[in-house]
Amino acid sequence: MQFHLNGFEPGDPEIADTAQRYPESGAKGALPAEVDVLVVGCGPAGLTLATQLAAFPDIKTVIAEQKTGPLLRGQADGIACRTVEMFEAFGFSEKVLKEACWINETTFWKPDDRQPANIASSGRIQDVEDGLSEFPHVVLNQARVHDFYLDVMRKSPAKLEPHYARRLIDLHIDTAGNDPHRVTARFERVDEAHQGEIETIKARYVVGCDGARSQVRKSIGRTLEGDSANHAWGVMDVLAVTDFPDVRMKSLIQSAADGSIIIIPREGGYLFRIYVEMDKLDEGERVGNRNIAADQVIAAARRVFKPYTLDVKEVAWWSVYEIGQRLCDKFDNVEDGAADELPCVFIAGDACHTHSPKAGQGMNVSMQDGFNLGWKLASVLRGRAKPQLLHTYSGERQAVAKELIDFDREWAKVISSSKGADPAETQRYFVQHGRYTAGTATRYRPALLTGEPTHQHLAKGLTIGTRFHSAPVIRVGDAMKIELGHTVKADGRWRLFAFAPKGDAGQAGGRLRALCDFLATAAESPIRKYTPAGADIDAVFDVRAIVQQGHRDVAINAMPPLLLPAKGKFGLRDYEKVFAPDLKGGHDIFDMRGVDRAQGCLVIVRPDQYVAHVLPMHAYEELATYFDGFMLTA
Amino acid sequence: MQFHLNGFEPGDPEIADTAQRYPESGAKGALPAEVDVLVVGCGPAGLTLATQLAAFPDIKTVIAEQKTGPLLRGQADGIACRTVEMFEAFGFSEKVLKEACWINETTFWKPDDRQPANIASSGRIQDVEDGLSEFPHVVLNQARVHDFYLDVMRKSPAKLEPHYARRLIDLHIDTAGNDPHRVTARFERVDEAHQGEIETIKARYVVGCDGARSQVRKSIGRTLEGDSANHAWGVMDVLAVTDFPDVRMKSLIQSAADGSIIIIPREGGYLFRIYVEMDKLDEGERVGNRNIAADQVIAAARRVFKPYTLDVKEVAWWSVYEIGQRLCDKFDNVEDGAADELPCVFIAGDACHTHSPKAGQGMNVSMQDGFNLGWKLASVLRGRAKPQLLHTYSGERQAVAKELIDFDREWAKVISSSKGADPAETQRYFVQHGRYTAGTATRYRPALLTGEPTHQHLAKGLTIGTRFHSAPVIRVGDAMKIELGHTVKADGRWRLFAFAPKGDAGQAGGRLRALCDFLATAAESPIRKYTPAGADIDAVFDVRAIVQQGHRDVAINAMPPLLLPAKGKFGLRDYEKVFAPDLKGGHDIFDMRGVDRAQGCLVIVRPDQYVAHVLPMHAYEELATYFDGFMLTA
Repeated sequence: MQFHLNGFEPGDPEIADTAQRYPESGAKGALPAEVDVLVVGCGPAGLTLATQLAAFPDIKTVIAEQKTGPLLRGQADGIACRTVEMFEAFGFSEKVLKEACWINETTFWKPDDRQPANIASSGRIQDVEDGLSEFPHVVLNQARVHDFYLDVMRKSPAKLEPHYARRLIDLHIDTAGNDPHRVTARFERVDEAHQGEIETIKARYVVGCDGARSQVRKSIGRTLEGDSANHAWGVMDVLAVTDFPDVRMKSLIQSAADGSIIIIPREGGYLFRIYVEMDKLDEGERVGNRNIAADQVIAAARRVFKPYTLDVKEVAWWSVYEIGQRLCDKFDNVEDGAADELPCVFIAGDACHTHSPKAGQGMNVSMQDGFNLGWKLASVLRGRAKPQLLHTYSGERQAVAKELIDFDREWAKVISSSKGADPAETQRYFVQHGRYTAGTATRYRPALLTGEPTHQHLAKGLTIGTRFHSAPVIRVGDAMKIELGHTVKADGRWRLFAFAPKGDAGQAGGRLRALCDFLATAAESPIRKYTPAGADIDAVFDVRAIVQQGHRDVAINAMPPLLLPAKGKFGLRDYEKVFAPDLKGGHDIFDMRGVDRAQGCLVIVRPDQYVAHVLPMHAYEELATYFDGFMLTA
Repeated sequence: MQFHLNGFEPGDPEIADTAQRYPESGAKGALPAEVDVLVVGCGPAGLTLATQLAAFPDIKTVIAEQKTGPLLRGQADGIACRTVEMFEAFGFSEKVLKEACWINETTFWKPDDRQPANIASSGRIQDVEDGLSEFPHVVLNQARVHDFYLDVMRKSPAKLEPHYARRLIDLHIDTAGNDPHRVTARFERVDEAHQGEIETIKARYVVGCDGARSQVRKSIGRTLEGDSANHAWGVMDVLAVTDFPDVRMKSLIQSAADGSIIIIPREGGYLFRIYVEMDKLDEGERVGNRNIAADQVIAAARRVFKPYTLDVKEVAWWSVYEIGQRLCDKFDNVEDGAADELPCVFIAGDACHTHSPKAGQGMNVSMQDGFNLGWKLASVLRGRAKPQLLHTYSGERQAVAKELIDFDREWAKVISSSKGADPAETQRYFVQHGRYTAGTATRYRPALLTGEPTHQHLAKGLTIGTRFHSAPVIRVGDAMKIELGHTVKADGRWRLFAFAPKGDAGQAGGRLRALCDFLATAAESPIRKYTPAGADIDAVFDVRAIVQQGHRDVAINAMPPLLLPAKGKFGLRDYEKVFAPDLKGGHDIFDMRGVDRAQGCLVIVRPDQYVAHVLPMHAYEELATYFDGFMLTA
């Protein structure tokens, strides 16, 4: 898609009339007096969380935002492969893939050996290594990501819309009373019509997704610790004419004497973003001085760009910020060691960790926070899981944020150290850390939700604690080629992927049939224990089988009934539970993910797409024990 | 996507509240007094045409429909590969691919040799041959196709919405006067609030897309000729439980004594369509008797289905119809031989040709009618082409419809002749005619718009007169892998694809540079002659080059200026004009489409994606002559 040719316009580029691109939105009326979950802040973390909660009509959620309406421009733009995988679960990946700019290759530029005042091309690499994800690395205005979430929320069972123009004044946690709505929040309305009105709302849970200056964080007495300013950068979205040949590639440019810039091509084919290292500006212009004019940022970029010209026609958005990698020690209101106490206030996104934008991580990690917390809150509120499950949010996400900040810090150092650094070193570092920037390096350590790697050898490529790495398969019922990972939707359900041993197509006496029989009938089966009466058999645990035969060699009707379940009010059969390798396409998921062909295995995948456990197919006791650790009988 | 589990619900399945799935739509108020184009009928032909016209804000269009609102259920469902290619041009292919049911394989069933009262599987084939199109064959409720068109229309520059509840009374053509609005139409309003009100509207052009009983067709004195009834079929969309194993495949089933049925799996994973041959019903139930109860259709299906059971839980829609292949001899109001006269009334879709639904052709051919006529009307109305161009609509589309009806007739005969026919014969016929059903067999014969195949050998796989057969390429500016055919959007523009000779990357002295220089500067250049002053250089002719080198070996800045054009009010550079083969992916477009590597060639592609001509790169005179045949200087 090409757009923004005659100037940046916010909103849906498929609507020709720019005045109609952002329809009126937001909930009308006052805040309700009482909710299950109060989400503070309509950024990436808050919207991911609220969209997840909105999938459940039995959960009452409010999302409140200080701004008077949806974000229209600027801010973050990088969308990692892992994030697109999550968007697929939320049902809008295809919109992002259509509208975003795909980052296919990254180029490197350094001072020209012969004329060091000029830059020269020094390298070019594929941006994402082959096979890392079925999705690309893309960039898109953060505002459009918000729009897609808002659209899903609005259409969801809970029909959720944000309450805009609400400034959080304070939070009060009732530690004594019996009311499960333990938190009371006070908001001031900041729109003209209601200026100064105070609203009070009680919630079972409050999640602060209210950014680096989070009021929720302050109210639970936590602080962001770390460097608050070590390097200043200017960032600018421009429409410009240049003869720099790689302007539609992600380009890392180091000059000899004028610092570094990064070029990020953007959606629509014309817009691009420039990051300018501001340390190299004259003293009077730099760190701490936020009144730097856009013109000075442009001038700085031009100095690095030589011998190429840069004629900026329009600045769509710009900002100067200081890189600060900062972190909270815990992401909820419970003190370390107070394990008996149950958390009722959480913080997510920039409220508890901030990153250098250079690695394009901030927005991505924030959304994963929301995805991690959303299904857990829903499980507890719907009576499916013990509230102790909620401890795992801070446990998992704080460790991930810390790892990332360590990575960020190193990365920012590499990017900024233009003088001494070897450009080849930068490039090597970039390649090495591709998995980090793609968002696929996240790995949760063994704990309540993450199994020990005792049986990891049964599926070497589906690492416990990492996100389920999808691979193509053929759906037996209709010969449809799909990505197996795309069956993991953001619907709060668990997936049990049964990889059948060689020759096993569900026949009597085989492991697949035995596992299905156990799951369908045994008293200890998690399906039997934790699926509410009257619900579909796959309402909580979605069992899917992958056989080794070609899809034409499998008799769907001979499968165990659990794999051809009767569902809904009519008892219609669901034909989408059985898969075969894509042999014609040369993609055998058993090879691609290192699954033991002789033994098969069972892979447990969490509602947020992470591999919780890998078990032998007949390890019924371990399977039951895993879920007994945190589930509640229906 | 899975939906319709608990009953068929019309509208957008992504909206949870079924009551909100079809928002209020339709233009308010009376018809305008005067328009450029009046489209009568909101079926596939009318919507394709109106959506194309709505892309041009300078064309005033009305689309009027007798029904009181959008279609919600039933009717056609087959969407050929070629049609999805067109949807890509209109910008909504990704929505169809997400929501539709993909037809991956077709199965064949015949009487069991040992127990002829039962059916047995006799074969299974891939539905679409490899490489025929980059898109699959899918099925989706026709109503949803309408919805996607209505959405594009609403968002388009002309912001077009249908005028519902208008019954066309009559048309009058003024053959004498000077008013360019030669046609006067009278409508009766049929909604309750305006019952019986008469509206009069004058139009330059009227297009009758008003179905098999077209009032527009009658008003120009044309008739549908051909068989009006030779075989009766029941068609039924059901939610049902069955142990027939191929219920999620397209299945052609011939029984020994009870006729044939066809199973078409449908969107959402549960719904499927059954076609039942009704000739084999008892005398009292069959042809001519349209009061056949749904139960009798189900009973007929059950008899064929033995030994499998069919327990129908809900009938979402059903109908009984008689197959009739009928055709008009001409698709406009000008008599054969009266070439001086210019047409002002056209008919499209079922108004001028009807088909057996068995080959899944009716909706697809109708949409191609609309696509064919749309850009021609727009070109004439916008002063870019001579009105004589409009003769080509009937010339091209009537011949295609005739070919297809001949095919249909044969197909229906094969399907119906269950008793004698060899099932292997049916299967062979099906394979052989795959290209027909995919919609890619359409070929316009040499005429005003279609060049002689003198230079066809320069691009053997891009057959003149057929649709441009896409292939993957890498866009040089940003290393993006795309389908070259997807650059052909429904924007009324012509594409000139310059395939460069070996070693030619646009350098001085090469053929690519010479061609670009000719196009950019020569007085005879169609770009110079036919692009309005002040418009972007690619406003009428969109020139794109495909080189033979790997994309990293091409210097984008060294390309001729025409391939890095300055556009829009800022003169921003368009980096999306130059492509290279996808060498890493093993897809070399030069090999795939048989392009002469030594000489290269120029391929002219029409605004509706058909290959108009293949010429040597230096055949400037032939190039100019082709466009001089029908274009008008700006």
